[in-house]
Formats: sequence, structure tokens, C-alpha cells
Amino acid sequence: MQKIFITFLLLLTLSLQATDALPSWNEGTSKQSIINYVTIVTQKGTADFIPVKDRIAVFDNDGTLWSEQPMYFFLYFVMDKVKALASQHPEWKTTEPFKSALEDDMDRVMKSGEDGLLALLNATHSGMDVETFKTEVRTWLKTAKHPTTNRPYTDLIYQPMMEVIQYLEANDFKVYIVSGGGIDFMRSFMPETYGIPEEHIIGSNGKVHYENGKIIKDPDVNFNNDKETKPVAIYYTIGKRPVAAFGNSDGDFAMMLYTEANTKHKTLQLYVHHTDDKREVAYDRKSHIGKLDKGLDYGIKNNWTIVDMKNEWKVIYPFEMRK
Amino acid sequence: MQKIFITFLLLLTLSLQATDALPSWNEGTSKQSIINYVTIVTQKGTADFIPVKDRIAVFDNDGTLWSEQPMYFFLYFVMDKVKALASQHPEWKTTEPFKSALEDDMDRVMKSGEDGLLALLNATHSGMDVETFKTEVRTWLKTAKHPTTNRPYTDLIYQPMMEVIQYLEANDFKVYIVSGGGIDFMRSFMPETYGIPEEHIIGSNGKVHYENGKIIKDPDVNFNNDKETKPVAIYYTIGKRPVAAFGNSDGDFAMMLYTEANTKHKTLQLYVHHTDDKREVAYDRKSHIGKLDKGLDYGIKNNWTIVDMKNEWKVIYPFEMRK
Repeated sequence: MQKIFITFLLLLTLSLQATDALPSWNEGTSKQSIINYVTIVTQKGTADFIPVKDRIAVFDNDGTLWSEQPMYFFLYFVMDKVKALASQHPEWKTTEPFKSALEDDMDRVMKSGEDGLLALLNATHSGMDVETFKTEVRTWLKTAKHPTTNRPYTDLIYQPMMEVIQYLEANDFKVYIVSGGGIDFMRSFMPETYGIPEEHIIGSNGKVHYENGKIIKDPDVNFNNDKETKPVAIYYTIGKRPVAAFGNSDGDFAMMLYTEANTKHKTLQLYVHHTDDKREVAYDRKSHIGKLDKGLDYGIKNNWTIVDMKNEWKVIYPFEMRK
Repeated sequence: MQKIFITFLLLLTLSLQATDALPSWNEGTSKQSIINYVTIVTQKGTADFIPVKDRIAVFDNDGTLWSEQPMYFFLYFVMDKVKALASQHPEWKTTEPFKSALEDDMDRVMKSGEDGLLALLNATHSGMDVETFKTEVRTWLKTAKHPTTNRPYTDLIYQPMMEVIQYLEANDFKVYIVSGGGIDFMRSFMPETYGIPEEHIIGSNGKVHYENGKIIKDPDVNFNNDKETKPVAIYYTIGKRPVAAFGNSDGDFAMMLYTEANTKHKTLQLYVHHTDDKREVAYDRKSHIGKLDKGLDYGIKNNWTIVDMKNEWKVIYPFEMRK
């Protein structure tokens, strides 16, 4: 019986290897670099083998796993909620940044700066328990449409990156999201949409307190997860240095350098480079959203994997496959 | 072949069930309540079945997984480090709380209050990178001895609770530590000693910043994980309400109430009650360390599992088994 069992396992292994783990990727340097990395570090008995416990991979979200143009999707939720609450706040018609939000003037909202954004966040996020908030987000996502494509926001996830996540998980990597997006916003849809559980989602977050069995959202930011604070969030939540990091902007640069500085294990750094002005939006060094400049120079110089979306991705979004 | 394989799996399952998962527990109400709970919630197709993704269990550490008398072990590390650094700080001989720490006067150190403790933490924890700090703790644990038993601190872990952790993990629970102890202190030994990975360890923590690929420890507390902030830490790090909570003091009461308030799933709350004045220390309502008063009343009234250490544990520490 043992012989039969071993043969069975061997056949299973071979058949798994024969399947293309990244079918939405054209053959090319990026696909090859991902597959090479995973193959090498999971080969037991070799110098580059990484034990399962150290296989930590971190992914940015906006611009890395779903689109972020013309504006972070999270902010559309905030705008829509301001509108929904406006009837209870007649003063918003004449008070910035609410006035601009109600007039759909995103440029002027952005010009209100950090204080303006904080005022919007406090007005839309605090004073309710976390579960109620997450239900609100889920309800919003069911009907809200992205302004330029007129599609549900969850349609605009990157199929090739979903395949990378699944490929890593199939090889016993623990995959974490490390994003500047709001933690409750992300936790409301990612478990279902990405298959990433709540406990692997790290984001910006607000103050909260515990009361009568519930977590209540309070005003003010507790942690802003961006640039140099991304490694800090990884430290607090994971406590291990990742071996693989995936991003698309200078906001992810510190997290990728932190990963690259892993002296114990071979690492992988991958930048999604937005080069496709037909199927998505082409942007990098001069963009206000998802600016990729310093990181791009460093990545090119240091042999990081730079994905050319236009030429390396067969499809960008899952719905393209259903056509 | 399929038939042989299924038979093989069936035999394996039966042989696993026949093994006693909690051999260090005497037959009694606590052992039965743990086994009943796990058996019921893992039985597919029944009303109480909990899907694997929601099987989150949280454990306090001091007094729940290892001893905490006559003082939290973490503080002995702090005291010893003050002594080790004293030659570089001649002013400590005349400055409180350092003077008392150098004189091993723990009572007076405690009387220095939060400000005094913060001064000690800042002097011993900040200005170095996290990895260096963890190496220091590991080095200390190798030689330091517990003051009343003269044993290494890691000898003083509770064998019956280690079995509960392993039993839960074998049943696909994700086990998290949620402790007031310092996060780096705990992460330096728990992966090896408890088999709990860094990313499942939640603790009190200090401020840090990212610099040149490293996480550097700064002065000041960032998060004090105790009482009502334990559910808050669970929210930030896990983002799901646990289904099982294990503690020993009123400091764990909020976390256990938060777990009990889970309306989606059947829950388990367990208090380790320190009743053994021979093999350990008997303490509860009047103790300065690990006070259990309000929680005990509530737990008894609400059918929580209250472990009588003296009568329900065959052994307390692993070394008793090696005798």
C-alpha cells in the first residue's frame, strides 16, 4: 500500500507542476522571475530553501492588486457616504471640505490637505461599531460604480496578481496585505474577493475603544500606513521580515527595501509598472496617485522585477476572461 | 487504490481520536469541557460547526501559559538589564527607580508607578534595533534563574496548557497570544518554547521607527495591552472576534467578554485558577499580580470553565514529567 501511496503523491506532484500557475502572464522576464524564485526557495535541501515558517509575502493593494485611478477607491466610498449623510448636516453645504465633496469636486477635496481628509474620515467613520461599518462598505460595493469604467470596484482587481497570490499560497507562503487603505474598508471585501483572511490584512486605521462586547470607531487616525511606516506595521503585526514584497509606488519603497535587507533568505521584490494606457492608465514618475519614481530607479538598478503591464499581462481584469 | 487510501485515512482518524489529547489533565469538568467544545464545533454538518477560518483562539500569557509569581518574569529581565548597564550610568546609584532596581528592591520599584516603570523600560529597551534586543533576551533566558524556584524561566511553562494549544492547533484553530508582556520579549522565546509563530504574538509594545532596513526601538510606550485594550489589540491585529479565550486574571476579563459576545459561533471561556499552594502559588482576589476577582464571579455565574490547578492538573510544569 505504501508504494501505491507514494506513486500517487508523485503523480500528483508532477501534474501540479505541469499546470501553468500564472496563466494570465505572457512568457517573459517577470513571469520567469516569479516562478524561478518560488521554485528555488521551496526546493528542500538546497542553499536557498526557505522554511515554511519564514515564507512571508507582503502586497500593497491600491495600484498593486486593484486599480487606483483616477483616485483611491476608498475615497469614493468616503465621498458617497458624505452625500448620504448630508441631509443630517445642512451646515456641510457651506463648510469645506464637505461642500467640495458634495459637489463631487475631488480636486478641491484633495487640496483641503490632511486636515480636510481627517474631517471627512471622522464624519464618515466614527461613532459606530466596526461590524456596522463593514456592513455599510459591503452594501456600498454592491451598487457603487467606478467613475470612468462604470464597473463595480471589485471588478477592477488584477487577475495576474490574484494568480501570484494563489501561487504563493499553494507553495505555503503566508500572504499579507500591507496597504495605506483603511483596515475596515479592506477587511469588508478582501476575504471574499481576494481570498485573504482578515488577520492577514494590515492597513491604516483609526482610534477605537471597547465597549459592551463591541469595538467602537472613534475620531482621529491611529496609524497611517505609508512609506516608512509600512515596515513598522509589518513589525508590529507580523514580527518577521518578509521574503517577498509586491508594490507599485514609492509608497511601497521602504517596505521593499526592508524585505531586500533580509540577510537570512533569498528575496523577491516586484513592482507593478502601469504602462498600459489602453486597458488601464499609464502613469509613474509624475502621477499624484501612485507616484513611482525613486523606487523605479532603484528597482531597475538592483534587478528587481518590474512588470510591464502592457506587454506582460494577457488580461488585466478577471472580466476580460469572461468575454 | 482509492479504496485502500480511504481505509488508510479512516484508520488514521480513528487512531488519532483514541489518543488522549490532554494527558496532563485529570478527568474532570475542565478537561471534559475543553474536549466537548472542540469536538462539537469541529463536527461538520451540525448546527455548532465553526468553519476553519473562524477558529480563532486567544491566550493570555503570564499566569495562563507560564507562572507570574512573585513578579512578571519580564520585569526580572528589565531589572537584570538595569544592573548590566549600571556601570555606564553612575547616576543610577542615586536616582529612583534605578537605585531600587539595583538594590533588588522590587516593592519600591513597583511603588515608582507607571512613570518609574516607563523610565526603566526606556533605559533598557530603546536605541537598538529589534533583532539585537531579541538576541539579548534569548541570551538572558539561557542563564537567568527564577528567584524562588531557581529554574530557568522557560521551565515554568504550564504543560497542561501547552497540550490545549496543540490540541486546538491539531483541530485547525489559529492560536494567538494576547498578553500585556512586551511583544519583542515574547517573540524572542515563544516560537521555540510554545511553537507559536511571531505573527500570532500580540503584546504591549513601544514606539519604533524604520531606518536603513532596520526597525529601531524608541522611547515611550506605543500600546499597553491590558483589560479593555486587549479586545482592541485583537481587532487591530486579527480583525475577527475569537471563539475561544483563555486567561487567569481580571486583566483578561474584557477579552473573554468580547469572545463570549460572539453571536455567530459557540464560544469557550476558560480561567486558570491558581489554587495550588504546594506546586505553584495559590492566589486570586487579593493578589497584586494576576488579580482574579470580578472575572471569577462572572465566570462561575456564567458557566465558564474554571480550572482548579491543584485538582485538575496532573503536572504543572514539563520538568515534572521528566522526573
